[in-house]
Amino acid sequence: MLLVVNQRAFTVMASPLRLRSIARKACLRCYSSSALQWEGGISMVQGASRGIGLEFMRVLWSSTSIPELSEFLWCDKVKQLLEKNEKGHVVATCRNPDAASGLLHLKNRFAERLSILPLDLTIESTIEASAKSIRERFGSLNLLINASGILSIPDVLQPETTLTKVEKSSLLLAYEINAVGPIMVIKHMWPLLKVGRGSGTERDVAVVANLSARVGSIGDNHLGGWHSYRSSKTALNQLTKTVSVEFARKKDPIICILLHPGTVDTDLSRPFQRNVPEGKLFTKEFSVQKLLGIINNAKRHDNGKFFAWDGQQIPW
Amino acid sequence: MLLVVNQRAFTVMASPLRLRSIARKACLRCYSSSALQWEGGISMVQGASRGIGLEFMRVLWSSTSIPELSEFLWCDKVKQLLEKNEKGHVVATCRNPDAASGLLHLKNRFAERLSILPLDLTIESTIEASAKSIRERFGSLNLLINASGILSIPDVLQPETTLTKVEKSSLLLAYEINAVGPIMVIKHMWPLLKVGRGSGTERDVAVVANLSARVGSIGDNHLGGWHSYRSSKTALNQLTKTVSVEFARKKDPIICILLHPGTVDTDLSRPFQRNVPEGKLFTKEFSVQKLLGIINNAKRHDNGKFFAWDGQQIPW
Ligand SMILES: NC(=O)c1ccc[n+]([C@@H]2O[C@H](COP(=O)([O-])OP(=O)(O)OC[C@H]3O[C@@H](n4cnc5c(N)ncnc54)[C@H](OP(=O)(O)O)[C@@H]3O)[C@@H](O)[C@H]2O)c1
Ligand SMILES: NC(=O)c1ccc[n+]([C@@H]2O[C@H](COP(=O)([O-])OP(=O)(O)OC[C@H]3O[C@@H](n4cnc5c(N)ncnc54)[C@H](OP(=O)(O)O)[C@@H]3O)[C@@H](O)[C@H]2O)c1
Repeated sequence: MLLVVNQRAFTVMASPLRLRSIARKACLRCYSSSALQWEGGISMVQGASRGIGLEFMRVLWSSTSIPELSEFLWCDKVKQLLEKNEKGHVVATCRNPDAASGLLHLKNRFAERLSILPLDLTIESTIEASAKSIRERFGSLNLLINASGILSIPDVLQPETTLTKVEKSSLLLAYEINAVGPIMVIKHMWPLLKVGRGSGTERDVAVVANLSARVGSIGDNHLGGWHSYRSSKTALNQLTKTVSVEFARKKDPIICILLHPGTVDTDLSRPFQRNVPEGKLFTKEFSVQKLLGIINNAKRHDNGKFFAWDGQQIPW
Repeated sequence: MLLVVNQRAFTVMASPLRLRSIARKACLRCYSSSALQWEGGISMVQGASRGIGLEFMRVLWSSTSIPELSEFLWCDKVKQLLEKNEKGHVVATCRNPDAASGLLHLKNRFAERLSILPLDLTIESTIEASAKSIRERFGSLNLLINASGILSIPDVLQPETTLTKVEKSSLLLAYEINAVGPIMVIKHMWPLLKVGRGSGTERDVAVVANLSARVGSIGDNHLGGWHSYRSSKTALNQLTKTVSVEFARKKDPIICILLHPGTVDTDLSRPFQRNVPEGKLFTKEFSVQKLLGIINNAKRHDNGKFFAWDGQQIPW
């Protein structure tokens, strides 16, 4: 028999009784592990074509859609989970859906509960169109993950090693995509999140999770450099905090959190992985499992906070 | 006899001996008061046409140029001060020198030691031209005060009261002028500041003072709103910190500090003064006197710090 725990499959040889006990324990563990805590509702992953965003899509979907789980339908927890997920839907947005091969691959497997919408952060009309599409189809949103981001673009943007290399165009570009973009997405999804609140999930609030970065911390800035990226993430932190204050004041059933995923093996970090200490370069799988744990356990009092992958708060 | 203390003139009736004693005490007080601590060297005030920047110009100049001070030449401190200032020069920059009536008025009084250069933060060539002009004329710089800033511009930029009103164009405009601009000025003045260090002043380092704002603090953000202004100042804080780290690492004789002037009665704050508590709206004179005190007493260990007008550090 195949036992699936945290997306890893084990072949188990044991007596039927012992097998049932192992399986029940595994199910409970699955249920309480962050990777399988996807709770239904309508979620949106913005910046889902690659890297951490695509991995969010994969885990949000595949973990509860693993066919083997149907063998555990006698386990109430698994049954509840699958029932909830039957009502759940994930909206992936990216600049160019036709070129997003990873997303298209997922779509082939989970067609009915996954939508892909075109959204380019630099073109506000695409954000508005996404909001319109979600409103018409679902009327609400329970989770918004802003997973997009830029650090370097060949011949366009390079993380600066010294002030001499700082260019106005780089500062503005990083700001537009890393800080302005996610805030415009929240602006247009706000009415949907207000309707959605925590319904269909195990939370009592809708969650907005913005992918920030530890280098955006001013208090933690001991190395210098990376001016454009750093300051765009610092500004994202301030904008997210500002939005969180308004949500709290209006008693909206929404919280905003900021997440640092660790240094994760993606296209974004690849050119800069040389100096990462042994064991400190995370897989996308590891990081996203940790971040989903934080998202799914988020409570009202977490509104406006900045968490690292391990749940520790990062100074501003 | 006219006695001048902190820019206020007193007529003193007393015996010559007593008068001399009063005058000596006053001189010493002048010398140690921030308003008269201007120490020569080459200074630049960027954003000097109005408000706090213009007041910096006025105090940097008028305090040591008050003709009455020449009556106190027998006082060594005053003599030293005037001698130092004879070598001192202040460069005021602004977008449109011909329209800067306050600056032109000062220039009429202190022509030989005050220059006015055109500098628009949004046009990098004007920053480069200012650096070239200062290099050719003086070869160095000891103090750079970035006093420019925007909060509102009729029909263009309004401090946002809610997320619904946040516009991409406003976020980008505030960022360009409040965060990018000052950093580009530092970039181009860096070689001059390196040469200038503290020479000609009582400090052992050159100082870059960037006018930030308490609302740029993320930790102190309890009110929300003002998204564009807030995030631009937060980014300025991060960029200044980033630059300060590089200056320290390279052992450059320059420090950068961030200053919050308090709520000051200027064009910038005027539309928003309604809710300022009694006694909390400062005059330009008061604020600049406090800020010059911080600047003149700044030491290497202050590099990268964010001070309020009263010398208290502000959380990031
Ligand atoms: N990886 C790390 O070590 C690390 C560390 C700290 C923080 N982070 C943050 O985590 C987030 C995800 O990073 P990652 O490592 O997954 O990066 P990645 O692999 O480079 O993926 C970046 C994503 O952002 C999207 N994007 C870029 N510009 C966009 C635009 N104008 N409109 C919409 N989407 C756009 C990309 O879409 P296209 O495919 O269309 O280009 C892609 O999906 C980012 O915010 C990053 O700053 C990452
Ligand atoms: N006043 C307050 O209560 C307060 C509180 C906290 C922080 N601050 C900060 O203190 C600093 C000074 O503020 P203030 O009250 O003196 O403001 P202000 O009276 O409105 O003066 C602003 C100055 O910035 C200049 N400026 C604007 N855009 C510019 C550009 N593109 N290029 C060059 N210069 C430009 C203006 O020049 P023009 O004459 O050409 O327009 C003017 O000299 C700002 O950084 C502000 O954010 C002020």
